[in-house]
Amino acid sequence: MLERIDHVGIACRDLAATTAFYTSTFGLTVVAVETNEEQGVREAMLAVADAPAASSYVQLLEPLGPDTPVGRFLQRRGEGIHHVGYGVADIHAALAAISATGVRLLDSRPRHGSMGASIAFLHPGDVGGVLTELVESGPR
Amino acid sequence: MLERIDHVGIACRDLAATTAFYTSTFGLTVVAVETNEEQGVREAMLAVADAPAASSYVQLLEPLGPDTPVGRFLQRRGEGIHHVGYGVADIHAALAAISATGVRLLDSRPRHGSMGASIAFLHPGDVGGVLTELVESGPR
Repeated sequence: MLERIDHVGIACRDLAATTAFYTSTFGLTVVAVETNEEQGVREAMLAVADAPAASSYVQLLEPLGPDTPVGRFLQRRGEGIHHVGYGVADIHAALAAISATGVRLLDSRPRHGSMGASIAFLHPGDVGGVLTELVESGPR
Repeated sequence: MLERIDHVGIACRDLAATTAFYTSTFGLTVVAVETNEEQGVREAMLAVADAPAASSYVQLLEPLGPDTPVGRFLQRRGEGIHHVGYGVADIHAALAAISATGVRLLDSRPRHGSMGASIAFLHPGDVGGVLTELVESGPR
């Protein structure tokens, strides 16, 4: 069902500075920078490996304010890994199959994610403390 | 420099139960279970995507005791994502290049990791709160 590790989501206080760190230290390439008002974040997608062939990303997340999910995460935990996103071929089918096992869905229907993807989060309390996201990539 | 997301390391209290959850809920396949006394963990590597072609893994980590890095993490944070590991072609070259940028290395020389890999950790305090591992895969 899970086809790849699509991305690791990392919460940071300063998106520009953290993006500069990842590009200069690790040689990653920025492929998208977007604001997602619904999720209360400004985010950068950095391709791991050469961008044209990349299917995995570091997703850097800066909250739009303190009273957002990532803002509260930073207050509680500080900067660090926020979630992991796995690629799936069919997010509706994956959500139905996972829900049927008893795992609670934070999103019963997919929402808009980075780069035109459809995404949905699973409840971390049912996934061993891991905020887990499913990602069906958008058209390339 | 970073070629792929090699794995996401997840701290858990019960390796057998958590492995069973990931295989039954997400259809992942266990490809290795090892004890690493040096790191104080028992770990399972679960391939994301079909095992023969897999290059990314979920690494489940159960501490061998409370006074180990993962044991202390569980006491402090509870179960959840512990670290991210990135694949590199040449771990010695990668460590030298990263160290030259001022990032502190927790391992100045590579150590033995899962499935014959050579691994080294970077200081999370210099990587935006992210415990970051470099992985040079072992011979297949």
